[in-house]
Amino acid sequence: MSDINRLKSRTRADYRYILEYRTRWSDNDMYDHMNNSIYNFLYDSVINTYLMEHCGLHPPSSPQYGMVVHSHNDYFASISFPACAELALRVNRIGNSSVAYEIALFERGHEPVRSVGEFVQVFVDRDTGRPSPKGMNPELRRGLENLLVDSRTSKL
Amino acid sequence: MSDINRLKSRTRADYRYILEYRTRWSDNDMYDHMNNSIYNFLYDSVINTYLMEHCGLHPPSSPQYGMVVHSHNDYFASISFPACAELALRVNRIGNSSVAYEIALFERGHEPVRSVGEFVQVFVDRDTGRPSPKGMNPELRRGLENLLVDSRTSKL
Amino acid sequence: MSDINRLKSRTRADYRYILEYRTRWSDNDMYDHMNNSIYNFLYDSVINTYLMEHCGLHPPSSPQYGMVVHSHNDYFASISFPACAELALRVNRIGNSSVAYEIALFERGHEPVRSVGEFVQVFVDRDTGRPSPKGMNPELRRGLENLLVDSRTSKL
Amino acid sequence: MSDINRLKSRTRADYRYILEYRTRWSDNDMYDHMNNSIYNFLYDSVINTYLMEHCGLHPPSSPQYGMVVHSHNDYFASISFPACAELALRVNRIGNSSVAYEIALFERGHEPVRSVGEFVQVFVDRDTGRPSPKGMNPELRRGLENLLVDSRTSKL
Repeated sequence: MSDINRLKSRTRADYRYILEYRTRWSDNDMYDHMNNSIYNFLYDSVINTYLMEHCGLHPPSSPQYGMVVHSHNDYFASISFPACAELALRVNRIGNSSVAYEIALFERGHEPVRSVGEFVQVFVDRDTGRPSPKGMNPELRRGLENLLVDSRTSKL
Repeated sequence: MSDINRLKSRTRADYRYILEYRTRWSDNDMYDHMNNSIYNFLYDSVINTYLMEHCGLHPPSSPQYGMVVHSHNDYFASISFPACAELALRVNRIGNSSVAYEIALFERGHEPVRSVGEFVQVFVDRDTGRPSPKGMNPELRRGLENLLVDSRTSKL
Repeated sequence: MSDINRLKSRTRADYRYILEYRTRWSDNDMYDHMNNSIYNFLYDSVINTYLMEHCGLHPPSSPQYGMVVHSHNDYFASISFPACAELALRVNRIGNSSVAYEIALFERGHEPVRSVGEFVQVFVDRDTGRPSPKGMNPELRRGLENLLVDSRTSKL
Repeated sequence: MSDINRLKSRTRADYRYILEYRTRWSDNDMYDHMNNSIYNFLYDSVINTYLMEHCGLHPPSSPQYGMVVHSHNDYFASISFPACAELALRVNRIGNSSVAYEIALFERGHEPVRSVGEFVQVFVDRDTGRPSPKGMNPELRRGLENLLVDSRTSKL
């Protein structure tokens, strides 16, 4: 199975954390589809909710925060306002200061996945804007490891 | 009770239609509050969901659609990502081609209202961009009347 | 002349500070018009640019910042991507801690004003989230006074 | 030179079409940087402006329109409101119905590129939502070919 076919066959069971987001009127563009940029807004939202609720991140004050350095996304089918989107999150790789999230978008009430993408974040110190020599802090790492999918089953 | 105090004391029971919207990471501005412009996105979303699900509106093809000609909003308290917002809708006035919606934003799990505003829409014919001499179509009017609050109790 | 007709007749000469913003693809909604919520994004942007460049505001660290407590807007004609918008700013009233901005949206190459609105901001201390008993700081006040239109000529 | 280093060394001269976009207050997230999702809004905007102004696209009525099926982006350095962004566009590949755009974001007054990404669009017939057996229409193709960079110099 090619990589892209593997991604197209993702199901909710391939992920560890799912949140529902109601689409907004302004999400649709002139072709009556949710605009491609909105996917990134939603990916960012499910990631940051997880970081705040399960990894101790407090954006206004935490000594480390994540900067997105790479993103990619494959769009398999569209979704339109006023549908409800389900955003599903897992972690594919964890480095010293970096993490690769995989995020999928489903539509409530429908089986097939609509899009699958990855965000790579580097955690930097707020003071310097650079990664710490010690890497990400332990509470972050523990939280992210809870979403880590065994690398032998992850082919992204 | 002054007008503004009347609005500040609104509760969910003052409205006829409520939808929940999860806030998004990008909704917050640099002060860790949902940006004021986002309120309008959410007001627009609850209005258009109601129009599509209860008034027969189909945005890509309906012969009439609503244009916002006036909006105002009072902000009483802030809300921050990743909170869930509850958007509550009622209709304060219906004219020949126009409607005044009142929308309130609540936060899930909290009693006090965060903001109350009004949007005035004029329904125009898609062909001309102008109101029809016959006014809004009957299906729209019936749907909007179901949200109309008795004018003696509405002081906005 | 009624208030609304007075606003409809606003020209660029009625304002003190103008910036141009190119519209974005996602600004248009399904009716091929810039969505009403986007006006607030642009109003907010011209206000904050002025505060940062002419009033000493530094959002990540300034001891005081502005919270929008009221907004209203009248929409006279639409604008569509990829047009360029011109955002025009003036100050209608200054209080101890509050300011009422008037903002108008024009389209590059066209005379008539597309919309006129007001934002009321209250400057609060970052530490408390409340206005200072001493009011807004002097550098802010001086900057805002430079945009103040003589109240005898302002009828909003 | 690795692929990523090649992208990091891109200059404005590597592109064929450049538009300036003023950043908006709401573009910044809580870390005082333009949010990663906004890059896609701007990429989409420069692409669609080019399609409308140089390829005959009229979004409300054109018989074919482009759907984004893949996007990726590398973020090299951040940009913050109220900076002006310069969006630079070229075409890396043209297929029968598809096109791969490369877009770079620069900051006015600064030499180094801030981000480089690709969007892949498939042109579909409005009636069917699927590519035409004849591929994209000739006017579109001619417009896109004007931005095509010789493949021997393009390594993305």
